[in-house]
Amino acid sequence: MKLLVRCRILPWRRHFSSTARQRVIKPVSELQDRIRPSYVQRPPNNLLSLQWPSPPRNVLITKKKRTPGITGSLVEFTTHLYNTYPAINIILEPESAKEIHEQVTFPVYTYEEPIRNLSPLFLSDKTDVVCTLGGDGTILRASSLFTHAANVPPILSFAMGTIGFLGEWKFKEYKRAFREVYMSGAADAYANIDLPEGQEPPSSLDDPLDRPLSYADIRGKSMGATRTARILLRNRLKVGVFGPDGSRIYGTGDDGDAYALNEVIVHRGSSPHLKVIDVYVGGRFLTEGVADGMIISSPTGSTAYSLSSGGSIVHPLVSSLLLTPICPRSLSFRPLVLPANTPITLRLGEKNRARAAEVSVDGKRISEGIDVGTEVRVLGEEVKNQAGEWCGGVPSIVRGVNGMEDNEEDHWVGGLNALLKFNYPFGDQDGGTR
Amino acid sequence: MKLLVRCRILPWRRHFSSTARQRVIKPVSELQDRIRPSYVQRPPNNLLSLQWPSPPRNVLITKKKRTPGITGSLVEFTTHLYNTYPAINIILEPESAKEIHEQVTFPVYTYEEPIRNLSPLFLSDKTDVVCTLGGDGTILRASSLFTHAANVPPILSFAMGTIGFLGEWKFKEYKRAFREVYMSGAADAYANIDLPEGQEPPSSLDDPLDRPLSYADIRGKSMGATRTARILLRNRLKVGVFGPDGSRIYGTGDDGDAYALNEVIVHRGSSPHLKVIDVYVGGRFLTEGVADGMIISSPTGSTAYSLSSGGSIVHPLVSSLLLTPICPRSLSFRPLVLPANTPITLRLGEKNRARAAEVSVDGKRISEGIDVGTEVRVLGEEVKNQAGEWCGGVPSIVRGVNGMEDNEEDHWVGGLNALLKFNYPFGDQDGGTR
Amino acid sequence: MKLLVRCRILPWRRHFSSTARQRVIKPVSELQDRIRPSYVQRPPNNLLSLQWPSPPRNVLITKKKRTPGITGSLVEFTTHLYNTYPAINIILEPESAKEIHEQVTFPVYTYEEPIRNLSPLFLSDKTDVVCTLGGDGTILRASSLFTHAANVPPILSFAMGTIGFLGEWKFKEYKRAFREVYMSGAADAYANIDLPEGQEPPSSLDDPLDRPLSYADIRGKSMGATRTARILLRNRLKVGVFGPDGSRIYGTGDDGDAYALNEVIVHRGSSPHLKVIDVYVGGRFLTEGVADGMIISSPTGSTAYSLSSGGSIVHPLVSSLLLTPICPRSLSFRPLVLPANTPITLRLGEKNRARAAEVSVDGKRISEGIDVGTEVRVLGEEVKNQAGEWCGGVPSIVRGVNGMEDNEEDHWVGGLNALLKFNYPFGDQDGGTR
Amino acid sequence: MKLLVRCRILPWRRHFSSTARQRVIKPVSELQDRIRPSYVQRPPNNLLSLQWPSPPRNVLITKKKRTPGITGSLVEFTTHLYNTYPAINIILEPESAKEIHEQVTFPVYTYEEPIRNLSPLFLSDKTDVVCTLGGDGTILRASSLFTHAANVPPILSFAMGTIGFLGEWKFKEYKRAFREVYMSGAADAYANIDLPEGQEPPSSLDDPLDRPLSYADIRGKSMGATRTARILLRNRLKVGVFGPDGSRIYGTGDDGDAYALNEVIVHRGSSPHLKVIDVYVGGRFLTEGVADGMIISSPTGSTAYSLSSGGSIVHPLVSSLLLTPICPRSLSFRPLVLPANTPITLRLGEKNRARAAEVSVDGKRISEGIDVGTEVRVLGEEVKNQAGEWCGGVPSIVRGVNGMEDNEEDHWVGGLNALLKFNYPFGDQDGGTR
Ligand SMILES: NC(=O)C1=CN([C@@H]2O[C@H](COP(=O)(O)OP(=O)(O)OC[C@H]3O[C@@H](n4cnc5c(N)ncnc54)[C@H](O)[C@@H]3O)[C@@H](O)[C@H]2O)C=CC1
Ligand SMILES: NC(=O)C1=CN([C@@H]2O[C@H](COP(=O)(O)OP(=O)(O)OC[C@H]3O[C@@H](n4cnc5c(N)ncnc54)[C@H](O)[C@@H]3O)[C@@H](O)[C@H]2O)C=CC1
Ligand SMILES: NC(=O)C1=CN([C@@H]2O[C@H](COP(=O)(O)OP(=O)(O)OC[C@H]3O[C@@H](n4cnc5c(N)ncnc54)[C@H](O)[C@@H]3O)[C@@H](O)[C@H]2O)C=CC1
Ligand SMILES: NC(=O)C1=CN([C@@H]2O[C@H](COP(=O)(O)OP(=O)(O)OC[C@H]3O[C@@H](n4cnc5c(N)ncnc54)[C@H](O)[C@@H]3O)[C@@H](O)[C@H]2O)C=CC1
Repeated sequence: MKLLVRCRILPWRRHFSSTARQRVIKPVSELQDRIRPSYVQRPPNNLLSLQWPSPPRNVLITKKKRTPGITGSLVEFTTHLYNTYPAINIILEPESAKEIHEQVTFPVYTYEEPIRNLSPLFLSDKTDVVCTLGGDGTILRASSLFTHAANVPPILSFAMGTIGFLGEWKFKEYKRAFREVYMSGAADAYANIDLPEGQEPPSSLDDPLDRPLSYADIRGKSMGATRTARILLRNRLKVGVFGPDGSRIYGTGDDGDAYALNEVIVHRGSSPHLKVIDVYVGGRFLTEGVADGMIISSPTGSTAYSLSSGGSIVHPLVSSLLLTPICPRSLSFRPLVLPANTPITLRLGEKNRARAAEVSVDGKRISEGIDVGTEVRVLGEEVKNQAGEWCGGVPSIVRGVNGMEDNEEDHWVGGLNALLKFNYPFGDQDGGTR
Repeated sequence: MKLLVRCRILPWRRHFSSTARQRVIKPVSELQDRIRPSYVQRPPNNLLSLQWPSPPRNVLITKKKRTPGITGSLVEFTTHLYNTYPAINIILEPESAKEIHEQVTFPVYTYEEPIRNLSPLFLSDKTDVVCTLGGDGTILRASSLFTHAANVPPILSFAMGTIGFLGEWKFKEYKRAFREVYMSGAADAYANIDLPEGQEPPSSLDDPLDRPLSYADIRGKSMGATRTARILLRNRLKVGVFGPDGSRIYGTGDDGDAYALNEVIVHRGSSPHLKVIDVYVGGRFLTEGVADGMIISSPTGSTAYSLSSGGSIVHPLVSSLLLTPICPRSLSFRPLVLPANTPITLRLGEKNRARAAEVSVDGKRISEGIDVGTEVRVLGEEVKNQAGEWCGGVPSIVRGVNGMEDNEEDHWVGGLNALLKFNYPFGDQDGGTR
Repeated sequence: MKLLVRCRILPWRRHFSSTARQRVIKPVSELQDRIRPSYVQRPPNNLLSLQWPSPPRNVLITKKKRTPGITGSLVEFTTHLYNTYPAINIILEPESAKEIHEQVTFPVYTYEEPIRNLSPLFLSDKTDVVCTLGGDGTILRASSLFTHAANVPPILSFAMGTIGFLGEWKFKEYKRAFREVYMSGAADAYANIDLPEGQEPPSSLDDPLDRPLSYADIRGKSMGATRTARILLRNRLKVGVFGPDGSRIYGTGDDGDAYALNEVIVHRGSSPHLKVIDVYVGGRFLTEGVADGMIISSPTGSTAYSLSSGGSIVHPLVSSLLLTPICPRSLSFRPLVLPANTPITLRLGEKNRARAAEVSVDGKRISEGIDVGTEVRVLGEEVKNQAGEWCGGVPSIVRGVNGMEDNEEDHWVGGLNALLKFNYPFGDQDGGTR
Repeated sequence: MKLLVRCRILPWRRHFSSTARQRVIKPVSELQDRIRPSYVQRPPNNLLSLQWPSPPRNVLITKKKRTPGITGSLVEFTTHLYNTYPAINIILEPESAKEIHEQVTFPVYTYEEPIRNLSPLFLSDKTDVVCTLGGDGTILRASSLFTHAANVPPILSFAMGTIGFLGEWKFKEYKRAFREVYMSGAADAYANIDLPEGQEPPSSLDDPLDRPLSYADIRGKSMGATRTARILLRNRLKVGVFGPDGSRIYGTGDDGDAYALNEVIVHRGSSPHLKVIDVYVGGRFLTEGVADGMIISSPTGSTAYSLSSGGSIVHPLVSSLLLTPICPRSLSFRPLVLPANTPITLRLGEKNRARAAEVSVDGKRISEGIDVGTEVRVLGEEVKNQAGEWCGGVPSIVRGVNGMEDNEEDHWVGGLNALLKFNYPFGDQDGGTR
């Protein structure tokens, strides 16, 4: 197979020949369609291997908002990508695009801010890889750009400042991290990349990771066949919100539903009164919850709001849904963990005095003042299709590479200990002065 | 001591002689000043005995709002009081007064609705007894009318429909219940009530509790010396809210503070983000809470919001304050129980992104959109003064009379079991069809 | 296919011709080998359909111990089975066999009580169906008879007296329940059962379920093709216990390990001191637990000891393992839910003062006074083999039949509400006298 | 008042004149009777001031067992006391006495090991101060020596190695700490100490705290009137255990009961089965607990076993009892906090299958295999007598001195944070490499 990339301008060309600096913002719709990787499982390993059929090109980068230092990092990162990898296009959020397009020498792509609760047009059809610079909130926001997409591109997340639970990489590792993602599956898949003729990259750079790559470099050499980026496929929730008359209030994707990475909640919000929420499981009435609210969480979200509300910590690979009440007026509402393929419905019961409940997805309010009779319907996302291929979910690139797991810390166990201070030991080990 | 009541019209007079029906609403300021009861402890009993120096006259009655059936009960109850007891005056909330004054044959007293967070003028100086018809919410609302009063009149609460945890009596017991309160301490204190001359009450009524009383009936006879109404003195919280500049935002009573019966909370309200709340105990920094909110609760409130948030159940007679976090982003924020005389301060920390936190007292929002730096300062109320006399608190009349405890159910133990379903046993005892 | 059963004595024969009553106890080894059913999934249904290739014959019946009334029920039940179904053999536990063999007219089979922690010889090779008369404890004991068997026969459990969470059926339903199990899959599989010639069953019985069946009755007629018994395949845990020197202390089945239905625990037992237990997850050190003990539970066990220790309730179909600490000396040891295929190891740490820890499986102590360095290694059982066939687990027959689910209560939701009093509502609905 | 100490040998005498080293162990009964300090409250301070009527003389020192390094510290500490303070006598546990009496130059006093559950004879009548070298366990053991004494001497506890929650002082502070205790109240009370004539202490020691004191030094000078040792009076539980026939099984003090510092528990111990425990509160039946066990804890014990079992943290000055179940088979058994003067009874219910329950006090099993019908009766200790004097409790000397609180850390808040890792913040602040 001859790759489409052949005739594209190669990166080091860009360095020397682009006389007029390209300070333009272009629409994402102009980009070529995304390249869909496949995910391969090699038991007994539970993580998947990322496998590109051809090198990724369109990279969406999102960053934490209102945090001064990060803009510089964004410029540094995008410049590195542009200079180092052949045929890379940078996609930014509208705000970031406006902020940095004058500071860089290459065009940046962006999209129009969608109206409330909708997804940006074209974005999910064009993006090969997502990189996030920020914390968990930035990842959630990035994932929300794909809230109506059944197939989310792989996400490479860099922690800036405080490390989050979902974010995996430190920003100072960005060169190595991106190289691993870019080359993942190279030996198998990039073997036949067609070479553009006669180009030599400059060769005297300090950091080999800074050396511009040509497709010749890539072809079948790097990283080794089994050394691939590791993917944790995070199941999402399919969420639909329906008014008392049955009409859809939220969830407008192809198949109607929207996706949540952490959770969907119904909450009293600013209403001072307890809410009465009927819970149906598998189509059957389970219970009437009287509470501040109710959470339906993915395993990924089990370390977020559900944890604060008393839920168990569920490993992201346990195919399940969590039902966790928020401050229930009951001594006996223990959190539940249900099979991912069980539909759960939350219904705002007739007993509620006022209508001021809210629905939020991943920490973003999508609906407020909802009426008695409103239903939130949730189902776990399938991450394997009929053919047994992995699909769906949010493919999160975790630290370490396949084939070398034994030397690496487990990302989840590590996160429990280092970030959540799980079972933090009693005693004076911090050398306190007591 | 000759009582002031001597020259007042006696009740059965009112029946026959009031040719023009009195459908007027009068200001509460016209009433005579309240009669303050004393509270006597007889160890080992933990509950106190109510002791009137002279019969109570001014009865404030509050009722649940927006609940149709209750207006009829209010008319029935007030009419009974007016017809049966000498010199009784009925005080109602403005709304109720408007609603029923045309249906009754006696004047009703009321006050002006105060502006936000203030207390009604004169009310606490005039009210001898409070009766509530409704649930816990009605009791909380009644108590909030005295939120700036150091001395709350005794509260006799009737449950209408669903029984609450604070509400003690069934409405159908109203005659007996009120009689017990009215006569409490009669043998000791009413011995010298001066008799108005020459009146004979009508004598052929079915229910002896319906027979109009004269002071002659009351004088030293009824109930027996030790058979007194039992009072549970519910400690409140003294609450002050102060802006970042130190100025008082809430709490405007004589000594500046306001009182809460259940709890004061700081909460994210409709803000979707976690709040950062610094907690000081006894003037020392304890911890930085990151949470939906923070509750400081009285023992009475330990079965309310604090319970839903995972707090322990604390008996109302344990002199203490509870600090219970709401959905804390921490695995290790266990609820605390502190001495009642420990000042606790909640401070909205600098790390908060947005200012949209709220402060609520007993389920009523008193402040919203509060700024970083705002402080909520709380201290448990003293219920014994220097002289060792019981004062302060919300004197709640509980079921049963002193001197007969052994035959009676304990109100608190009963409430745990019957209402909170405490340690409700597993198994099929409900005769379910499973 | 001609069935082996052809030449066996048919039930109603037994009634009339057995001149000498057979009051003998025979060894289970004399029985023919078991008939293995298959389990078929019909999405979206999560429960499986039981499918016999030919009618089951060898029925093991266990009963609750030390409970007087149950012996009578055992006699009634076995007599019914013997009289009604062709070629049924009754297997009993040694104690029961001794207790009732004189009261019944047919031989009973039994096995020798195995020595500690071993399984009875031959039993798992001979048993087609298990029936239990008792509560959850009886089911656990029955399951423990197959603790070294990878394939457990289907279990039909009858509650006697108090209903348990695992036990599904009421004893008074025993005729219908057994008929449903016996006939499950009949239409498909029993079509070609060869008929023994010339027999007519007696026909004038009140209850059609009492009418002795011949194979002619069974052949392809009953219940309808899709009306099959519903199976909940309860995953077990594979457990091995190893001494400090690496030698196996417990678990002696073919593949070395033993199976647990609820959980395996390490506990301080009668030692008054906290135990120090190192926890490894997926081969990596997770944490050092200091606690009364540590539970590794199956989802089935999530409503047993793990629940009492604060664990979440996990639906039995969520393929997972629970790690729940018992009274941990830590504020931050939140229960974990891990993928079923994650190996977990508990290791008695060097810091323990005394050696008096205990290991228990399903409430039965299997090892005590274990040494520092002892390891308990656990893995979730696979319930689907390479070929995608369902196997393993404890196949539990739940109420209701496939094809009629919509009319039936969900057994799990029903159990939460009726037995565990899940989210039992506050308030006075029991009509208490308060 | 002339003090009794006049004629006793002064310390520096002992140095020079004791020609024959006194390597003897003497009976504690030979010592003079103890000197009882008083405890003074100076509001708003919640801690009490220790006030000696005359200098303490008899010091009981206990140490952690089976911990090699500590014996050296014991020798160092006792030698310092003997050399520095006039008329000090050292009391040791029998084991320690045997261990060190050959290494020291002064006599040590000891008592006979009492038989099970009894207290050592004479000890509580002779001991002025208790010092403990070890952790919380050592304090508990020291306190158990006074388990039948209504008046426990003040306890000064030194942490050796790992710091505990009850232990306050670091061993390296021992000189200053003991000086503060010894001199506490000196200005007021020691003013008239009669001087033994003509003695001059040696004066050229490096550390002024090492300089031998004469009573002349002490008389009215040191520390200042208000600079007193701070006492936290830890309320204990009064515990009695009674057999099914009503006879006392445990608790043999003067008033029959024994005292617990942390808690009393009923527990299944090595029995694998749940226990059924009836709970009575204030003489009324509260609930039937089905659980591993049941804890009745003091506020001091709220950070011990009760904490591990899910109880709230209760400040030691909240006069209360905690009822906390251990692994209850119930979703709705929330821990309770009750007034200290409420009697609580735990009764082993008839439903228990086997008799193997255990009763433990402060982590020491006092009774096992107890019968159905056995009752554990508990009441909070009074710490103020009729005359309003502080008495009872375990007077624990906490860090800091009265009059200087503002500069000091609060011992309890400090313990929560430094030892219990209360609300330990999420995130990567430990500089982990993740
Ligand atoms: N009381 C609570 O615990 C609340 C939690 N949230 C959570 O916040 C999320 C939204 O995040 P932001 O917009 O940044 O809100 P935010 O500014 O309120 O921060 C949420 C916190 O949750 C952490 N977080 C988010 N997802 C996580 C995950 N899957 N595992 C572990 N930690 C996670 C973040 O690192 C951050 O510390 C929601 O999806 C919800 O789960 C939102 C409101 C209240
Ligand atoms: N998630 C929760 O549990 C929430 C609880 N609340 C509580 O509601 C109170 C205000 O009451 P409403 O205006 O009627 O609000 P509401 O209509 O939201 O009802 C609150 C519920 O709490 C019960 N309650 C109130 N005080 C109680 C007490 N001391 N002990 C036991 N139960 C008690 C009431 O009977 C009622 O069922 C607040 O003081 C707060 O304690 C308020 C918001 C949320
Ligand atoms: N699962 C648990 O948490 C268990 C706790 N214990 C506790 O241990 C105590 C006996 O202590 P040891 O003989 O040393 O047993 P141990 O060797 O089992 O250690 C008990 C631990 O509890 C700590 N501790 C004791 N009293 C405390 C208090 N009041 N506040 C905070 N921490 C405290 C000690 O420092 C030690 O870390 C009992 O009174 C009981 O409270 C005993 C058994 C199990
Ligand atoms: N504190 C606790 O909750 C304890 C629980 N257990 C549990 O008891 C089991 C052994 O049972 P028995 O020998 O009958 O002991 P047992 O006589 O102590 O009773 C255990 C109780 O647990 C119930 N149970 C058992 N398995 C269950 C399940 N999967 N879901 C819901 N309820 C269940 C039984 O119905 C019974 O009420 C153990 O596997 C363990 O899970 C054992 C000891 C203590």
